[in-house]
Amino acid sequence: MSAAARARPDREALLVLLAAVCLALITILSVWRLKRCKYKLMYETGGAMFYGVLLGSAVKYLSLNQAEPSRAAVCSCVGLNSTPHVLTLNATPHLHCYRHVGRTNQGCPTVSAPRMETFDPEVIFNLFLSPIIFHGAYTLNQRRFFENLGSVLTFAFLGTIISCVTIGACVYGFLRLMVLLGHAADGDSLLTDCLLFGAIMSPTDPASVLGLLSELRVDPDLHVLLFGESVLNDAVALALTHAITSYIQTGAGRAFDPAASLHALAYFLGVLAGSLLLGFMFAAMTALLTKFTQLRHTPLLEACVLFLLSWTSFLSAEAAGLSGIVAVLFCGMSQARYTRHNLSPEGRTRAEQLFEVFNFLGEIFIFGYMGYVLLTFPHHVFKALFISGAFLSLFISRAFNVYPLSFLLNLGRTNKIPRSFQHFMTFAGLRGAVAFSLVMHIDRSTEVRRAILTTALLLIGFTVWVLGAAADPVLRRLDIRAGEHDDERPDEAAAGRPDTTPGLWHRLDYKYVTPALTRRGPPLADSLPRCCGALARLLGAAPAQEDEEQLCDAEPEESTFGPEETGGELLSVSGDDGSERQEDLVEGDLGLGSAPALAREA
Amino acid sequence: MSAAARARPDREALLVLLAAVCLALITILSVWRLKRCKYKLMYETGGAMFYGVLLGSAVKYLSLNQAEPSRAAVCSCVGLNSTPHVLTLNATPHLHCYRHVGRTNQGCPTVSAPRMETFDPEVIFNLFLSPIIFHGAYTLNQRRFFENLGSVLTFAFLGTIISCVTIGACVYGFLRLMVLLGHAADGDSLLTDCLLFGAIMSPTDPASVLGLLSELRVDPDLHVLLFGESVLNDAVALALTHAITSYIQTGAGRAFDPAASLHALAYFLGVLAGSLLLGFMFAAMTALLTKFTQLRHTPLLEACVLFLLSWTSFLSAEAAGLSGIVAVLFCGMSQARYTRHNLSPEGRTRAEQLFEVFNFLGEIFIFGYMGYVLLTFPHHVFKALFISGAFLSLFISRAFNVYPLSFLLNLGRTNKIPRSFQHFMTFAGLRGAVAFSLVMHIDRSTEVRRAILTTALLLIGFTVWVLGAAADPVLRRLDIRAGEHDDERPDEAAAGRPDTTPGLWHRLDYKYVTPALTRRGPPLADSLPRCCGALARLLGAAPAQEDEEQLCDAEPEESTFGPEETGGELLSVSGDDGSERQEDLVEGDLGLGSAPALAREA
Repeated sequence: MSAAARARPDREALLVLLAAVCLALITILSVWRLKRCKYKLMYETGGAMFYGVLLGSAVKYLSLNQAEPSRAAVCSCVGLNSTPHVLTLNATPHLHCYRHVGRTNQGCPTVSAPRMETFDPEVIFNLFLSPIIFHGAYTLNQRRFFENLGSVLTFAFLGTIISCVTIGACVYGFLRLMVLLGHAADGDSLLTDCLLFGAIMSPTDPASVLGLLSELRVDPDLHVLLFGESVLNDAVALALTHAITSYIQTGAGRAFDPAASLHALAYFLGVLAGSLLLGFMFAAMTALLTKFTQLRHTPLLEACVLFLLSWTSFLSAEAAGLSGIVAVLFCGMSQARYTRHNLSPEGRTRAEQLFEVFNFLGEIFIFGYMGYVLLTFPHHVFKALFISGAFLSLFISRAFNVYPLSFLLNLGRTNKIPRSFQHFMTFAGLRGAVAFSLVMHIDRSTEVRRAILTTALLLIGFTVWVLGAAADPVLRRLDIRAGEHDDERPDEAAAGRPDTTPGLWHRLDYKYVTPALTRRGPPLADSLPRCCGALARLLGAAPAQEDEEQLCDAEPEESTFGPEETGGELLSVSGDDGSERQEDLVEGDLGLGSAPALAREA
Repeated sequence: MSAAARARPDREALLVLLAAVCLALITILSVWRLKRCKYKLMYETGGAMFYGVLLGSAVKYLSLNQAEPSRAAVCSCVGLNSTPHVLTLNATPHLHCYRHVGRTNQGCPTVSAPRMETFDPEVIFNLFLSPIIFHGAYTLNQRRFFENLGSVLTFAFLGTIISCVTIGACVYGFLRLMVLLGHAADGDSLLTDCLLFGAIMSPTDPASVLGLLSELRVDPDLHVLLFGESVLNDAVALALTHAITSYIQTGAGRAFDPAASLHALAYFLGVLAGSLLLGFMFAAMTALLTKFTQLRHTPLLEACVLFLLSWTSFLSAEAAGLSGIVAVLFCGMSQARYTRHNLSPEGRTRAEQLFEVFNFLGEIFIFGYMGYVLLTFPHHVFKALFISGAFLSLFISRAFNVYPLSFLLNLGRTNKIPRSFQHFMTFAGLRGAVAFSLVMHIDRSTEVRRAILTTALLLIGFTVWVLGAAADPVLRRLDIRAGEHDDERPDEAAAGRPDTTPGLWHRLDYKYVTPALTRRGPPLADSLPRCCGALARLLGAAPAQEDEEQLCDAEPEESTFGPEETGGELLSVSGDDGSERQEDLVEGDLGLGSAPALAREA
């Protein structure tokens, strides 16, 4: 072997990239064409998944015709010394067998699974999931989010637990039924396996939900509820799977242990707080970098630094065993709140467009990959009864989650969640990348586990295709305002502005965080106690570009961030006058949506 | 193993990404800081390589402390059934042993090379090399390029052959000297090995050269000569390595065969023509897509389609065994010439900024990776005499290439290549990604081959760091206009405009290609013969946005593409009047730089 290798390099990685790029191109063009013909039945996510399935079936058909002789050679480990077949594992960086094969201790035959079958989902998700969430968070209407924070957290936390338990119970019931009907052996059906399935299938997926929401333009409150739930329940899903697998590993599979559930709660809180802090930390780092350096003179560098630091927040949270999705959510929101104001207008536009492109292509690649795996995965176990049970449990669990919680929340909310919103939330529980990533990591030693995997993939496909395509008609049927922008309801926004974000947080933000991280707000020296004078001088020292900054802030793109931003603008310009208005803040508002009504009463 | 895997996933791919992102961030910030302090000694390429070396040495140090016990287990193939160590190969998609290990038939011990040591260069290059070349080609001054095409081809083709033979001869001499001095065994020093080294080290690298040129802003003719040579000699290097390895494989290592050199020439022409056609094909596809569809209403899609199709040209050329670099060069140039005019202004800006970001980050990742490999590569063989011989041969070969060829070319050129340009061209023969990619694929069975690899990596590091840092002072010393823009010399540009591109090509382009691919130029029905009426109607049918198009074309950004574009503008607006001016074109101009002088004489 010599340098001629370059003339005919090992081309599998190349072909994979080529296939991915062609898939993306075909998806973009055909979906765009369909949209122009007013067929609102397919979005980029569904289209990419569809072409992924086509690609997967082509590869499966081709490899079935070719694989027989070589596979036998690979299966024998003794042949390793002489045949080069196993070494092709090295030559296919993205295309390897299952990542956790090594841990199942099933010996060599598992290694022989056809190598074109699964790329590494981890790499695809690490590359593309974070821009999708970041873009969603960066363009989020933050006022609405904080208004609805209590409800969002309730749905994300309690809702996911309800969902998990309901799905687990339903599926367990169906499994017992299968045992009774003689379709499965008795030992197979463990309650923990069912709960594990519940934990995997209960979190709604931010990538799918964002793909849907960006097309539909639903009511902004509904948008925030769906998006916030889908992002934050990632931390809950992490905690639940952690708790359930701890149960399984300690062999306490059938007993309920209150201490363990406390431990799970602590784990959840730890993951949430850790991810939140990490996300904020990286955003603060970006804000300080852009505040105190002259990066604003080179928009390319600004955009790259913002992009890379936001990506780092996701990667380091994942590397630390936290939730990268939650970290990048808070990173994106903080970047929009602080860093954005330190950037030059061109840098801002560039960064936003860069994230838009990554978001767009990322969705296509992630869903194309999921479609690809759907058919090419080699160990599918189709159990009709199990699958139908799981389908049913998906809807039951979603209804058990949304309606009772909405009822409870509406007791505390003055701005009630209408019945039509509840129907749509029940309907729009799309599963996707998060469930996929969870399910690809379970071991597949028992038949039930493999059936779980097959069923989960089918459910993901069903929610993305069928529910995704039906979303537009359902929305029209429910008469929820579609096709209207966030900037709706200017009267309410104007009336309730200073009161809408939780009081304590807003005050802290206004007095300390905003002046520290941006060039706006009251001087830090006034807010901080005397002993912190050095810190105040350090953080308060803004470069001499205040005037330019004021000009930049008056840009039209500001409007895409909702009226809340304009509120911030007003406060910062009015200076000390603004701090008086802060005194009117309603304290103790937990984001249950009561604020606008209070304002109206006043 | 269960779903908890997601809580603590196999984190190596994650850590690699994290390390890469942090490396990029540190490079960006420190180089930017250095530049602001007026230390013009380090560019992004050199900086990234420096931090790559630091990262590599840290990893090497850490793995030296840990690797001993596990490596032993991996080395024994028998242990494969029981130990999970080999299975980690599956868990590390990017971090695998050497790709071509399988072809050397050296058995299992080679597979045991430490796994954190080399990522897959193929993937990095496939991802990032094409945006770098595309960006260079897209922003190229095309008038200058075609003016100098003859010289560029001479340097790329003859120059690289001269370079290869000179380096081969020098290194062979030094190897014989080493044998005489007792530093090497006699059988080791094959002339073919030396020629192979010559073929690997002779092509200058487009990524390094572009990195340098973008910082320096040299004279536009010099820019075109250096850039054009560095891109087109990739095809020559491919043909040379192909020819030499054919020699080696057929065992005719010591005999010279004229038929084989004819074969190599045919191979070179095939690669060049194939890559050129492929690149143009994808550009034409993009141009037709953007001409005949309403993609211009969605700038995001426009930018994505342009980006993905240009990338496909690189990937499919590489997959077909052609030169992706040459393909993407012509794709980029054709996109700038045709597709650009079909895009909406926003889509155009977006696509340009997207490529700029990829170009910027791609340089950092590629050079960071090369720095990383420099120290972590496990089979280094340092031969001081060989290394010094190679260093010397590098300069000798460059001088043997540039000065005689410039002398010959100056006989035909009226716009001579000045002595100072020749000095700078000799100096600026930077090696980089292309040589790296070639050298990583040679097999390392003999000590000489391993010494070749070590030496090549050192030479790359030297040219990027030392020559890169010295370029600015050298340029000042030689008094070549630095810091001035392409838009220089408006008088010459205005006088010689219609004559500057080769006659036949320009006429074809004006009459057929431009009207077919864009909405400008004379109607195709007039140019094409009657029998092609249907084709003319098909391609000539432009959508109803002519007015808008005219408006868009008057944009200021047009100016970045040099006066030649304005010439095209004039011709297209003046319609039939313009075709009369075409008659004045000087035919048979082979791009030797004589055109402006002819115009002046007239």
